[in-house]
Amino acid sequence: MANVANKVSWSSKDGEVRPGEQTPLLNGSPSASQSPALPRQPSQPNFFRIDRLTTVNLDDDTAQDQDGNPSTHVSKEVLHNENLLSLKYESLDYDNSENQLFMEEERRISKIGFHVLEIKRWVVCCLIGILTGLIACFIDIVVELLADVKYKVIKQNIDKSIEGGGLSISLVLWASLNAGFVVIGSLMVAFIEPVAAGSGIPQIKCYLNGVKVPHVVRLKTLLVKVIGVISSVVGGLAVGKEGPMIHSGAVIAAGISQGRSSTLKKDFKIFEYFRRDTEKRDFVSAGAAAGVSAAFGAPVGGVLFSLEEGASFWNQMLTWRIFFASMISTFTLNFFLSVYRGKPGDLSSPGLINFGQFQSEAVQYNLYEIPIFICVGAIGGILGALFNRLNYCLTMFRIRYIHRPCLQVIEAVLVGAVTATVSFIMVYAIKTYDCQPIGEDPIKYPLQLFCPDGEYNAMATAFFNTPEKSVRSLFHDSPGSYNPLTLGLFTLSYFFLACWTYGLAVSSGIFIPSLLIGAAWGRLFGIFLSNITPDATWPDPGKYALMGAAAQLGGIVRMTLSLTVIIMEATGNVTYGLPVMVVLMTAKIVGDFCIEGLYDIHIKLQSVPFLGWEPPEKSHALTAREVMSYPVTCFKQLEKVGCVVDILSDTSTNHNGFPVVDENHEPDGDNVGRLCGLILRSQLIVLLKHKVFMERASSNLTQRKLQLKDFRDAYPRFPPIQSIHVSQDERNCTMDLTEFMNPTPYSVPGEASLSRVFRLFRALGLRHLVICDGSNGVIGIVTRKDLARYRLHKGQLEELEMAHT
Amino acid sequence: MANVANKVSWSSKDGEVRPGEQTPLLNGSPSASQSPALPRQPSQPNFFRIDRLTTVNLDDDTAQDQDGNPSTHVSKEVLHNENLLSLKYESLDYDNSENQLFMEEERRISKIGFHVLEIKRWVVCCLIGILTGLIACFIDIVVELLADVKYKVIKQNIDKSIEGGGLSISLVLWASLNAGFVVIGSLMVAFIEPVAAGSGIPQIKCYLNGVKVPHVVRLKTLLVKVIGVISSVVGGLAVGKEGPMIHSGAVIAAGISQGRSSTLKKDFKIFEYFRRDTEKRDFVSAGAAAGVSAAFGAPVGGVLFSLEEGASFWNQMLTWRIFFASMISTFTLNFFLSVYRGKPGDLSSPGLINFGQFQSEAVQYNLYEIPIFICVGAIGGILGALFNRLNYCLTMFRIRYIHRPCLQVIEAVLVGAVTATVSFIMVYAIKTYDCQPIGEDPIKYPLQLFCPDGEYNAMATAFFNTPEKSVRSLFHDSPGSYNPLTLGLFTLSYFFLACWTYGLAVSSGIFIPSLLIGAAWGRLFGIFLSNITPDATWPDPGKYALMGAAAQLGGIVRMTLSLTVIIMEATGNVTYGLPVMVVLMTAKIVGDFCIEGLYDIHIKLQSVPFLGWEPPEKSHALTAREVMSYPVTCFKQLEKVGCVVDILSDTSTNHNGFPVVDENHEPDGDNVGRLCGLILRSQLIVLLKHKVFMERASSNLTQRKLQLKDFRDAYPRFPPIQSIHVSQDERNCTMDLTEFMNPTPYSVPGEASLSRVFRLFRALGLRHLVICDGSNGVIGIVTRKDLARYRLHKGQLEELEMAHT
Repeated sequence: MANVANKVSWSSKDGEVRPGEQTPLLNGSPSASQSPALPRQPSQPNFFRIDRLTTVNLDDDTAQDQDGNPSTHVSKEVLHNENLLSLKYESLDYDNSENQLFMEEERRISKIGFHVLEIKRWVVCCLIGILTGLIACFIDIVVELLADVKYKVIKQNIDKSIEGGGLSISLVLWASLNAGFVVIGSLMVAFIEPVAAGSGIPQIKCYLNGVKVPHVVRLKTLLVKVIGVISSVVGGLAVGKEGPMIHSGAVIAAGISQGRSSTLKKDFKIFEYFRRDTEKRDFVSAGAAAGVSAAFGAPVGGVLFSLEEGASFWNQMLTWRIFFASMISTFTLNFFLSVYRGKPGDLSSPGLINFGQFQSEAVQYNLYEIPIFICVGAIGGILGALFNRLNYCLTMFRIRYIHRPCLQVIEAVLVGAVTATVSFIMVYAIKTYDCQPIGEDPIKYPLQLFCPDGEYNAMATAFFNTPEKSVRSLFHDSPGSYNPLTLGLFTLSYFFLACWTYGLAVSSGIFIPSLLIGAAWGRLFGIFLSNITPDATWPDPGKYALMGAAAQLGGIVRMTLSLTVIIMEATGNVTYGLPVMVVLMTAKIVGDFCIEGLYDIHIKLQSVPFLGWEPPEKSHALTAREVMSYPVTCFKQLEKVGCVVDILSDTSTNHNGFPVVDENHEPDGDNVGRLCGLILRSQLIVLLKHKVFMERASSNLTQRKLQLKDFRDAYPRFPPIQSIHVSQDERNCTMDLTEFMNPTPYSVPGEASLSRVFRLFRALGLRHLVICDGSNGVIGIVTRKDLARYRLHKGQLEELEMAHT
Repeated sequence: MANVANKVSWSSKDGEVRPGEQTPLLNGSPSASQSPALPRQPSQPNFFRIDRLTTVNLDDDTAQDQDGNPSTHVSKEVLHNENLLSLKYESLDYDNSENQLFMEEERRISKIGFHVLEIKRWVVCCLIGILTGLIACFIDIVVELLADVKYKVIKQNIDKSIEGGGLSISLVLWASLNAGFVVIGSLMVAFIEPVAAGSGIPQIKCYLNGVKVPHVVRLKTLLVKVIGVISSVVGGLAVGKEGPMIHSGAVIAAGISQGRSSTLKKDFKIFEYFRRDTEKRDFVSAGAAAGVSAAFGAPVGGVLFSLEEGASFWNQMLTWRIFFASMISTFTLNFFLSVYRGKPGDLSSPGLINFGQFQSEAVQYNLYEIPIFICVGAIGGILGALFNRLNYCLTMFRIRYIHRPCLQVIEAVLVGAVTATVSFIMVYAIKTYDCQPIGEDPIKYPLQLFCPDGEYNAMATAFFNTPEKSVRSLFHDSPGSYNPLTLGLFTLSYFFLACWTYGLAVSSGIFIPSLLIGAAWGRLFGIFLSNITPDATWPDPGKYALMGAAAQLGGIVRMTLSLTVIIMEATGNVTYGLPVMVVLMTAKIVGDFCIEGLYDIHIKLQSVPFLGWEPPEKSHALTAREVMSYPVTCFKQLEKVGCVVDILSDTSTNHNGFPVVDENHEPDGDNVGRLCGLILRSQLIVLLKHKVFMERASSNLTQRKLQLKDFRDAYPRFPPIQSIHVSQDERNCTMDLTEFMNPTPYSVPGEASLSRVFRLFRALGLRHLVICDGSNGVIGIVTRKDLARYRLHKGQLEELEMAHT
């Protein structure tokens, strides 16, 4: 039966039976009054209806499913597709369940209690900032040390080879060193924690959007991420360490705010009040902001990133706390790096990357340069779209053919070796064509190769260096430091390398490679401009390198306000604010015309039920009644334990939220009873675990008292129903759900438009929205997937199919 | 009867009858079925109940009431009080009424139609930016020209007097010139448009919060504001022209987005789709951002200001558009000022005020300065709180005794003259004590007075100058330019002058005076630091002037993130980001401990029903049933015209929203019928105006068809019911409301907590929220005032009284 459910995905366009046109399945059937909406019976005659119900009713999947095997007979090719919605993602409960227990606790908290809570929130944010800064500091120092060793070894070898011959041995050495580093990170990612691959920004976007991505905020993920990012950066891949900082910050925030770690099996018994999705998500957004702040030295940019990606409701105090965490994070990094570099008190390293001070004469720009900036933005938009398109095709290929961990590791190692080879060939190809004198501000490892004494190979500055330093060189090296051919070749090769690298099973950020590509062609553009206007001073190559970097990054990730501020903060100068805005805006408009942003592509390819900012256009044409899932599995306020266990154990449905209906009113019309509450699977699990039963419905016997603490202790990994043993005697007992259900769930009438439902859902971060008829009778339920399912495609609303992936 | 309603304000604490404990008044009474909830009958026996109902049901007041006279027997002293909520403010309808007309229109719009709308939104934002920039440019140039003339005349006179004696004539000249300028603006504000007084920021905050402040976004207000701000700045008051720019931007946005002007009686027939509160408020937030951007050259700060003050729901596309408007605004200002100053293409004047480039050596700060910055922040917080407290007392005094326009003008003229006198005395008092040599970068009008040749009076730099230039001098003049005594006296006198000036009947901003006060004591603090550490180079007075300015401004207005970014952008340097944050955070924490921010004080003194970010603590203790207004005046879907007219004409209630109940279900329990829609007073007025009746309930006759255009044409000044003539025959006709009502209003059960209701209300920007019982029967209605009424006071929830003001 479950297989049938997996195979057939219901789409309202397939079925001739539409909600509202016919009364749902079980109402009026004899069993309806005992168990108002047990979704289906094996003996059900209408086969089509059954399939449809089973799939439609899968409002949220449970944890135990993630570890279970997806049905093997459905080939992977069909499943990983941007036209599907995966059922494996749960939603976060951003809406508090205001049940009696919660209300009693809230009412008990005194004024001082509220103040203590508020202070605790600030303390947590402070800790998040400090730890995020420390981790950034750790990554930075380790990368610096290891990269130093690597480049020293290779340089010595190359210098020796130039004298004694055997340059191919140097190539092999370089390639194998790279591959060696890459294999460590790749093995960890592929075999230990696949969710640590990539930058983690798409996953954090999803989390902040309200989707619970499995394992994304676990300590194990953080460890793999940190080691992974060190190994891939040192391994010379075309990656940055900035993106992963955002993910790291988020994990730290989730861990600290909960005051315990499931990985370490350690509960510090602090911050217990914050053990629910509402509070946790707020802290995770602070963590993400702290990560951005540490990565780019951009505290304001970090706050804007969190808001742009995550906020559904702007809250001043929360924003202020996020800002505090960001500030502490950049400050911690700055402080420890200054101590490490032997200049304590000097606050010049606010982030992992720092674009460096632009000289004030170069900073100037003129009004007539604005159209040129628009051109740069357009080029960035087009190149970004090209990058995204190529990466999309590559990702599709990977989903189809490279889904086994060992293949992923082999691919990563291959990319590591190829990157070294390409670098080597490029450096070799440029040979004596572009030799630059070693100036007053020498790079750390100038590769002389075939250049005359006192000069070095310019291509090697770009390749034989960590990408952060290459970016800075492109921004600040004096005009004439780079030959156009060098820049052109570098842009071309790095573009394809970065595109191939993104999506590998390694921890890697896309920010720095994008900036590097953009800086290279931007500088090229600047050189071109100064060639056609030989007397002008304005076409400073460094300035255009910055614009190109912004354009390329904007064209790939399509961030807007936050990226402008991040670049402004990273350059330490607001004079470039306006041109950067112009460039980013053009890049976004041009890019959006071609293809979506890279993160959105990857989110879609993961079939995540992601909710956009606005309901799709045309969504006024649909009503709640048309999009809702029905009939709904409901409980009565006094419900048989056996019935609860049966419904929870039904693996073919796996509902996560159940409306509670009034037992004093018989269902009428097409409803299944009058709404009087909503209870979650997780709450029922806790009730069953603690045996909160009344014997044989005798209402004289009081149930065992539970406290909110019992629910918080079980959060967030509630045990599966299978692990709870309920005896046959206990099955006949009754549970009184009144005290535990949310007595005031949000509900809308069936006539409400999809657009209206979407706004309510998005603004309040809901997980379940009950659809009622005119007399408050439950007729359906809307979950995130029912809304995410609708997408505008070629001017028409299109419905995605759902599938187990 | 109406007088009774005005006199008695209901508080649930007064009455022994509480909602929920007893069935409301009219249910079960014989008249209930004909007119479900006509709120009261003159023959009602229970007098207390009547008063209570009449007042409680005043959910929103109507426009005609604003022009009506407040009941004269209630003295002004009692009414203007922060413990009252005024009934004169309406709410904005941020929630679309998704009635059949609207849905049909939305469904008719093609994909291209949506794109055209989106392009129109961008065009409107572009126009907002351009016009705001132009107005800022106009104000700047006119102020500069007039101030030049004024200072030239006074300087010549003083120079003559020094030689020939008769300095007192100079004083009289100065004072009368100031008073002369001030009287122009003050007359306009006091007699033509009182809402143009002050900076307008509190009013814009209210508007963005969802409160319709009368006249606030009218063209007339803009004209008065522009002339008023020019006259008060040229008049030498302790005011800035930056705050009013925010208001000006908002008015421009409201005007342009509607494509017509009621003041000019001109309808351009464009942008008709945007004629509703939802769209208008979005544009107004763009206008406010454009204003900030033009004032400070801070486009990102402008966006953050709009979001911090106004946004309930962060929307990415909207934010991006706001950003665009801000960018265009600063760019327009920059461009035209550069042309005016004869340097076209030079983009160095992004805002009305520009803090100037800080020298890079002065920019550096050290880790050990952080505690010092915290001290500066704390001083700013305390001084800010003192300022607010003094201004609060002064405002209370003004409300009591200076409420007649002519008195207000006299006060403004007095302040103008006193400002000149104090300035003169200060300049005179410093005499030869603080003479500075005229350096390479001379100020425009160096007053020599009694100083030796080639030197000038330092106090005059601060007083004999526009405040913007004084701020820049304090930031950038080399150490030693100011004597500590000069700074001390200046701080003291300017503090009290600025405090006296804010709240006068003139257009004036508080930003620049605050910055000036802060810069003065900050510089003093810097001098003090360099005196106690004579060998150190870090205590640069300019740096501490900036920190002091930030601290003082933060201590007064308590803005957080947005102010940090504004200061960062105005200094053109992000290096100071972290210290500015620290300073602002400390100032806010210290200040909040003493008294609220200045804007919030003024909002409270206006008794505006302002909704905070979060429900007040302890609000879990109250339920919707306890806070709602009841019984509710409802309509049936088919309603007698006479009944509609009677209810709308009832001046003692003046409801603005009416639930529509299902006529097929009799009321039962304590409800007044099953909810099936919600209709607004404005909609009913349009229906009555267009005579959308059916003769004698014969459902065969179809009503006259109305279009959304008819509603948009009447927006936003719907005629009062008294202006619509309905004949006796027509009174017997029937209106079918089905097509026009919102069929899916939001509703919550009576058991929902106040906190939950608050969040729903705030997140969606609602105006009416219907409270229903278990069977969807209407039992009450919650409006903005029912929520704003509750305030935490000394650890307990306190209920404000409502009054006509």
